[in-house]
Amino acid sequence: MTYTLSATVQRSYAETLDATREALATQGFGVLTEIDLAATLHAKLGVDVPRQVILGACRPQAAYAAITADPSVATLLPCNVVVREVDAATTVVEAFDPSAMTLIGGDALADVATEVRGLLTTAVAAVAAGALGTDTGTGTDDGGQ
Amino acid sequence: MTYTLSATVQRSYAETLDATREALATQGFGVLTEIDLAATLHAKLGVDVPRQVILGACRPQAAYAAITADPSVATLLPCNVVVREVDAATTVVEAFDPSAMTLIGGDALADVATEVRGLLTTAVAAVAAGALGTDTGTGTDDGGQ
Repeated sequence: MTYTLSATVQRSYAETLDATREALATQGFGVLTEIDLAATLHAKLGVDVPRQVILGACRPQAAYAAITADPSVATLLPCNVVVREVDAATTVVEAFDPSAMTLIGGDALADVATEVRGLLTTAVAAVAAGALGTDTGTGTDDGGQ
Repeated sequence: MTYTLSATVQRSYAETLDATREALATQGFGVLTEIDLAATLHAKLGVDVPRQVILGACRPQAAYAAITADPSVATLLPCNVVVREVDAATTVVEAFDPSAMTLIGGDALADVATEVRGLLTTAVAAVAAGALGTDTGTGTDDGGQ
């Protein structure tokens, strides 16, 4: 089964990262953490993996509802959204699907999982539609951070 | 079903947090992110939840093996370990159980999930055994951070 919401976008990594941040903010998510996974693995192991960042997105109202229903769900927060380079013109944006929480966490989380799933689906679709972020190859030159 | 590895510890929150950091380091996990969930929810929503921090623990070799087997698993990284206050003398330490990854991610992740599950189980057991961190009520006064 698939456990993510994802889209493959015909834009550069930096542009897609910009667009993803914008789409998450529009849907009410703050980004609490950010891990440059490729840089981390290169620094720790000397290996090279595709450029990718893990954004820890949190919608406070949803997080509060979720941990009120099941305190253990904090181990699944924040909602991770990964932006991963495929090639110079192709990028994947992929979020953990909150409906997988209900698979492992049960019905108590169904309502909030459905809500967050909808918001993340909208965010991923907005990135895929190309309406957000920089529209030119010059981009905002944020260096992937 | 349960999707976490957890232990209830008869020690203060600050002491348990110390012990958890030490136990994770001993098992080869670096802490890449740290979210003070109670402070975040208080700041954003004005609500009060039990003191708790989400530690984003990563064992680089395991992360590399996992994303090599299934790039989408980056949406489940790092491994979250939550330290949550119950009362002044009681704290819960709770990690997302990597075996839940195989439930949603399939057999490709079975080996690395089993490995990380073993390491996290050892870390949680070490915290529960009380052999790590500060042993007295005076503690190291790290203020929960």
